[in-house]
Amino acid sequence: MSLLIRNGEIVTANEQYVADIYCEGETITRIDRCIGGIDAAEVIDATGKYVFPGFIDPHVHIYLPFMGTAAKDTHETASRAALVGGTTTFIEMICPARHEKPLEAFELWLGKAQGKSACDFTFHMGVTRCDDEAEHDFEEIVRRGLSSFKVFLAYKGAFGVTDEELYKTLQLAKRLGVITTAHCENADLILELQKKLLAEGKTGPEYHYWSRPPAVEAEGVHHLMTFAEMTGTHVYTVHTSCEESVREALLGAQRGVNVWIETLIQYLLLDRTDAEKPNFEGAKNVMSPPLRDKKNHPFLWNGLRQGLIATLATDHAPFDFDAQKRMGEGDFTRIPNGIPSLENRVDLYFTHGVKHGRIDLQRFVETASTAAAKIFGLFPRKGAIQLGSDADLVVYDSNYRGTISARTHLMNVDYNSFEGMQVEGRAEVVTVRGKVAARDGHFTGAFGRGQFLRREPTHF
Amino acid sequence: MSLLIRNGEIVTANEQYVADIYCEGETITRIDRCIGGIDAAEVIDATGKYVFPGFIDPHVHIYLPFMGTAAKDTHETASRAALVGGTTTFIEMICPARHEKPLEAFELWLGKAQGKSACDFTFHMGVTRCDDEAEHDFEEIVRRGLSSFKVFLAYKGAFGVTDEELYKTLQLAKRLGVITTAHCENADLILELQKKLLAEGKTGPEYHYWSRPPAVEAEGVHHLMTFAEMTGTHVYTVHTSCEESVREALLGAQRGVNVWIETLIQYLLLDRTDAEKPNFEGAKNVMSPPLRDKKNHPFLWNGLRQGLIATLATDHAPFDFDAQKRMGEGDFTRIPNGIPSLENRVDLYFTHGVKHGRIDLQRFVETASTAAAKIFGLFPRKGAIQLGSDADLVVYDSNYRGTISARTHLMNVDYNSFEGMQVEGRAEVVTVRGKVAARDGHFTGAFGRGQFLRREPTHF
Amino acid sequence: MSLLIRNGEIVTANEQYVADIYCEGETITRIDRCIGGIDAAEVIDATGKYVFPGFIDPHVHIYLPFMGTAAKDTHETASRAALVGGTTTFIEMICPARHEKPLEAFELWLGKAQGKSACDFTFHMGVTRCDDEAEHDFEEIVRRGLSSFKVFLAYKGAFGVTDEELYKTLQLAKRLGVITTAHCENADLILELQKKLLAEGKTGPEYHYWSRPPAVEAEGVHHLMTFAEMTGTHVYTVHTSCEESVREALLGAQRGVNVWIETLIQYLLLDRTDAEKPNFEGAKNVMSPPLRDKKNHPFLWNGLRQGLIATLATDHAPFDFDAQKRMGEGDFTRIPNGIPSLENRVDLYFTHGVKHGRIDLQRFVETASTAAAKIFGLFPRKGAIQLGSDADLVVYDSNYRGTISARTHLMNVDYNSFEGMQVEGRAEVVTVRGKVAARDGHFTGAFGRGQFLRREPTHF
Amino acid sequence: MSLLIRNGEIVTANEQYVADIYCEGETITRIDRCIGGIDAAEVIDATGKYVFPGFIDPHVHIYLPFMGTAAKDTHETASRAALVGGTTTFIEMICPARHEKPLEAFELWLGKAQGKSACDFTFHMGVTRCDDEAEHDFEEIVRRGLSSFKVFLAYKGAFGVTDEELYKTLQLAKRLGVITTAHCENADLILELQKKLLAEGKTGPEYHYWSRPPAVEAEGVHHLMTFAEMTGTHVYTVHTSCEESVREALLGAQRGVNVWIETLIQYLLLDRTDAEKPNFEGAKNVMSPPLRDKKNHPFLWNGLRQGLIATLATDHAPFDFDAQKRMGEGDFTRIPNGIPSLENRVDLYFTHGVKHGRIDLQRFVETASTAAAKIFGLFPRKGAIQLGSDADLVVYDSNYRGTISARTHLMNVDYNSFEGMQVEGRAEVVTVRGKVAARDGHFTGAFGRGQFLRREPTHF
Repeated sequence: MSLLIRNGEIVTANEQYVADIYCEGETITRIDRCIGGIDAAEVIDATGKYVFPGFIDPHVHIYLPFMGTAAKDTHETASRAALVGGTTTFIEMICPARHEKPLEAFELWLGKAQGKSACDFTFHMGVTRCDDEAEHDFEEIVRRGLSSFKVFLAYKGAFGVTDEELYKTLQLAKRLGVITTAHCENADLILELQKKLLAEGKTGPEYHYWSRPPAVEAEGVHHLMTFAEMTGTHVYTVHTSCEESVREALLGAQRGVNVWIETLIQYLLLDRTDAEKPNFEGAKNVMSPPLRDKKNHPFLWNGLRQGLIATLATDHAPFDFDAQKRMGEGDFTRIPNGIPSLENRVDLYFTHGVKHGRIDLQRFVETASTAAAKIFGLFPRKGAIQLGSDADLVVYDSNYRGTISARTHLMNVDYNSFEGMQVEGRAEVVTVRGKVAARDGHFTGAFGRGQFLRREPTHF
Repeated sequence: MSLLIRNGEIVTANEQYVADIYCEGETITRIDRCIGGIDAAEVIDATGKYVFPGFIDPHVHIYLPFMGTAAKDTHETASRAALVGGTTTFIEMICPARHEKPLEAFELWLGKAQGKSACDFTFHMGVTRCDDEAEHDFEEIVRRGLSSFKVFLAYKGAFGVTDEELYKTLQLAKRLGVITTAHCENADLILELQKKLLAEGKTGPEYHYWSRPPAVEAEGVHHLMTFAEMTGTHVYTVHTSCEESVREALLGAQRGVNVWIETLIQYLLLDRTDAEKPNFEGAKNVMSPPLRDKKNHPFLWNGLRQGLIATLATDHAPFDFDAQKRMGEGDFTRIPNGIPSLENRVDLYFTHGVKHGRIDLQRFVETASTAAAKIFGLFPRKGAIQLGSDADLVVYDSNYRGTISARTHLMNVDYNSFEGMQVEGRAEVVTVRGKVAARDGHFTGAFGRGQFLRREPTHF
Repeated sequence: MSLLIRNGEIVTANEQYVADIYCEGETITRIDRCIGGIDAAEVIDATGKYVFPGFIDPHVHIYLPFMGTAAKDTHETASRAALVGGTTTFIEMICPARHEKPLEAFELWLGKAQGKSACDFTFHMGVTRCDDEAEHDFEEIVRRGLSSFKVFLAYKGAFGVTDEELYKTLQLAKRLGVITTAHCENADLILELQKKLLAEGKTGPEYHYWSRPPAVEAEGVHHLMTFAEMTGTHVYTVHTSCEESVREALLGAQRGVNVWIETLIQYLLLDRTDAEKPNFEGAKNVMSPPLRDKKNHPFLWNGLRQGLIATLATDHAPFDFDAQKRMGEGDFTRIPNGIPSLENRVDLYFTHGVKHGRIDLQRFVETASTAAAKIFGLFPRKGAIQLGSDADLVVYDSNYRGTISARTHLMNVDYNSFEGMQVEGRAEVVTVRGKVAARDGHFTGAFGRGQFLRREPTHF
Repeated sequence: MSLLIRNGEIVTANEQYVADIYCEGETITRIDRCIGGIDAAEVIDATGKYVFPGFIDPHVHIYLPFMGTAAKDTHETASRAALVGGTTTFIEMICPARHEKPLEAFELWLGKAQGKSACDFTFHMGVTRCDDEAEHDFEEIVRRGLSSFKVFLAYKGAFGVTDEELYKTLQLAKRLGVITTAHCENADLILELQKKLLAEGKTGPEYHYWSRPPAVEAEGVHHLMTFAEMTGTHVYTVHTSCEESVREALLGAQRGVNVWIETLIQYLLLDRTDAEKPNFEGAKNVMSPPLRDKKNHPFLWNGLRQGLIATLATDHAPFDFDAQKRMGEGDFTRIPNGIPSLENRVDLYFTHGVKHGRIDLQRFVETASTAAAKIFGLFPRKGAIQLGSDADLVVYDSNYRGTISARTHLMNVDYNSFEGMQVEGRAEVVTVRGKVAARDGHFTGAFGRGQFLRREPTHF
């Protein structure tokens, strides 16, 4: 198995030059001008194209049971969609219920992916309780190659942890050297606001926002900052949606907290009014934290440009509109949360970021790939184009023009929140460890070829 | 002319892998494992060593007249010291007096460097007045390859600009697409506080701090943020010394200002008490902004680690203690400002940053080299190790142990503020565009080989 | 001369009870239940009415030359309007041109008021330059009974001071123990933004806002805070219009600055759209700082309620629409600034504050009367209802309903920005030092009876 | 019963004048110059003295069971000490255990005071759980005349409420119009930090601080601000000890929260080192939040001066050093918390505030008496000197000089944390509703004469 990508413009977080890339087996073995004397099994002409390192989505849900139903993608459909969209690695959330044993949950989630996924994957280990037995499991899970935890300050009674558990989790994370990612919203406020809204007959999807206003998220971030400050561990705020929350994280950083901020493609391009569409259409755009006021868009773009925000993810969670989102008719709290975006993240971000002049190419690669690799212990195997790195490469055509639509997308879900949006760029060829897995919007990979990525603690 | 560096661990802002680097002429032409079949003029074994891109000091003074005297280094002595210390490119400040024509100043400064410097160089164009005639010159200077301005909010009557000029400068910078670097301290407050202190008989170097307390600097930064916000141009705060100032810049960034923050090695390792040493010894450590309280050290380190602070420079300005600093005996306002550090920046930063676990290798390279290259339009020619980049390379021995001393340093100045400090690392070999210029602490380069680096506007 | 006010509900910043008030000569000599055995010259039945201390407007312009014209009110018309509206004392700004001698300006302004005003008055001394000669004058002026300065950070070339003068003024203020009030907007930014807007053909009153956006004001406040911090003197920000500015002042207070914040009735009830009215109507509502976005209303009300904002004034400056505001047709920078409000402040504030439940009665009196008296050295002669205080009393009918209109107002100006607004309350009787000066909306006072109020330094 | 106080200088939050005060029965019935023709039972000559309204301590503990022991003061000893020190009203905390019925707790606490106290009193109703049954009790308690709740974010498992209960409590408070006072420290962080410290063998009183650092308190304040913002109710942060916490409350106020801030005399005059005294002496100065770094002193004084901080209280909680504080030898978490100050608050505050020029007389009275009366629904019955107010008066001798000592104090506790401090002022005569209760440091009142003060909701 060998692959030669000829004459592309290699763009990483920190490089930009024209060269050939030769991959033997699964890794990059040569990068040079005009590589000759080689008989590659596959030769791709990348002249006039960018060659990016495979993109990484550090926050996706695939196996996700929710109120008796489950997210629609399997690892086959999800990895297919990811690859066609240029994402070659994702980090899935393991979300066990409180009563489930962590190790069993790890094995369950791993089993759902292994042998199925066409792209590489790893997991954040959801810590939904933290007692002695669970700690024992977490240590074992870290030994098996996970190096990040996920805690929910929201979802009390389901995934949410108590303050005592939060402290213990962060202490454990400190000891093991793993980073803790956190969903930061105050659980009790949400519950009480939901109760209040429903009692007032405010049951439509447009009220979801009011059950989780910015103050509820900012409270969660402030809370995490304090606990991280007290335990001295490094943390990561997932799906940070608005100015109020980012400010709290930055204030934390200025008090010495080692914190990384993630935002989502949805928060850059959609806004609160999308969840207020009539005829229950808004339900398609219900996620948590909710879509925010449009005034947050320039704030978040600027944060990405300036390095205040580290990563751009999706929190991909696909539920059908007709069969699943509609469960929440008459009660917005029962609308399955999520705006499927795994397939479209890279193209939308390239279009509205690079093409529209908001961020440069290096920062684009850094926030959509490299930073996640570094923060989560995948670097330099992933997120880089260097000798010895996995040959996860994206030959990207910045002249392509297309339109996003549920009719054509590959995600296993019956709508697309970005329906009708134009994109100015597309992955022409996508490789996973040296093999072409997508080409011109079509999946050409192999299910089951995706590997579980063992990661080491990052010990900051 | 060809050079082969064998088997080093290449470390950039975004890579880490072992390979050989082959340079033909002045550029990197091959990076590969075990490059064979080549007859390099010079072969360096870098086994067990890091290979970094040449370090960039974005803020130095060499030709610097000051109150009838002048900084001691020439481009010979300065470039020699820089190279021995691993710095292969520096950006010098052109500081014309108000009455000097900018273009003549540019030519004067360029003439001092060209044919003398052993390393590459470029300049920030000091804007010390901004009228129509001067604007015309600035446009010409940008055409000739400078793409950054420098303004002083301090030094009223000398280099300082009025608010009207500041606005015009930023407008011009916006139009030309160049970035404006700024010395942020309120000029009038300094003058008044100096007057007050001298009138009270407070004339020693220990009072320098009190003539420029943190509030004076924070005021300057806030001022710059407002002007940058109103003109929509990108800016860069040089030698940001303390929490108060960094906070104002970050608040600016959160209001949408495109701002990059620089701090200095001096502010990370020295503190206010160093300028309070008895017997006028403190004068050695007089610079502006002044050395701050020690509590700022962890704040600044954390800012560098987390991407809040972009670059680490020196503001190198060498004045002899005996003949020059002593001019300020009896009047601290007459002490020539500056703490020479050009030679020691990299080793001290590596030691206290990487070795002591405060930042990782990638962030080390990014803040001491790559970020400056990107911000100032030198990337990817400088700051990267990629095909086609200038072969400015630093083979770095992290096992070296040494002690800093004025007795052994190469800077042309009779003291060293870091006297006696241990370093844990040293540049073993330093190359400038393919030729070895320093080895094991000795200069082996060629004066006059350094080139003026033409830069393009960065047009953020 | 004696006056008995029977059975009113006395409400001060700190009291609320029913009693009779007896005034002999000019002062309050008895406060008691059912005062008997007295043969008062005038008896007023205040049953069911509030009795407030006379209201104080700490920021008005009456004699105000501006671009070849002058504000329309004289001390006769202004004091008449003030009294009918419940204001029994105002503090006028003395605004000399830079070349005028301060002492002559003081005498000029004093001469315009003395023998004319029907209510008591004092002045803030405008410091429009600060050299040795001027300092000498200021000392004399303080001896003659002024104890507050006014500086303009805006209006460069006209009233504005340089940073050096600002520092000197604050130092002088510190030495003399007087408070410095400041118009906080950055002068150069305004000039440059004005130039830019006019060059773009943006000449209508709706562009006035964009020549002085919130950042320009916040910059001014931050600047003042730094200078006050460095000189240790107490300061007062006049006409603070928006959240951005108030925040800077509060941050200053938290750094130890002794600062008091004033806002205006206009900023509580009008907004930016009022200055955007078509057909040049917006010009009526042009003042500086400009009317802001409506979202600032709750912020300012809350600040008044919670003691973050100290005083509520008017910056009264009456220019006719037809003859004067129209001077700015085709060039908004030539629109005379000001929204006349002296007559309506108290009723509008009572209506929207007390009646609408935003502030309580005590806080109403405190912000509209007592705080100004304390800050500016008039307390307890003014701003209080106690034995020995001046008998400046307002018998207030909270059941009155009326409508504001230029057709009926007494201010000497041909429009009213609050035209058509309802008020829920009116001064039924207003006394000045024991004599009735207004009754039921009619002026019954005596021109020339108003006194110049000598004040002592407040030496905080 | 009648009382005439002759010729004192009456000083309230808003007045300053010389007059006689005549009290018939329990209230002030005349205030006049030279009241004649009256045959008062008691005549006090206050010439050259201040006459203040009786001071109010809004935060005291008297009946306080704690880990098997109880605070030492009874209502006899406490009210005696209060009166001698000029405090004529206090608000005690009712702190039921979670399992106690609120109404029974109210009756228990009321019973401990009624018939015993020599001064007037009321209570904050501690909400230590909030279920339907408890809500029913709280409604009844409000009907009986309490109009403030107290919640503990600290003391998990004992007094502390869950977030759900906090929300419900604030909702209930909103509905009933009562204000909620809150002890703001994160309970779980304290528990975990205590565990960690004890496990490390850090058991002495000097470690108490480290179990509750500023971040733990600031977290609590931020938390309360969010919950208050979400419920729209008015709140009050008790014993706010440091800059970090005050800032969070002020940021809350700027987001629209109706919040009042209390600090304590201890935080103005003592600091962290007082709790670090050797030989377990530090235990005398253990309270929560802990004494802070000295740098907070000017910050808090400035906050009081500028109206950012509303009230000055004591959190009086007297435990003997020998028999009680010593319970915590070998385990700082078992040291009974509290620094007894009820008797000394007024004199210390007058000395260090008014005499040392940090606050003026009006602000002194406002923060130590009137503000508490207004916030808690006692105004204008208390906190004012007006006709009809309770005749609680303090004739204050500002020429008195004395020294604080446990040997002479009247609080029932064997040490005084202010031992040896000088005071420059003392209450010469103190009256409670028209009767003299203390004179020259001696108690002359009547136990049991103190009344329970019924209060109405404040419905902000």
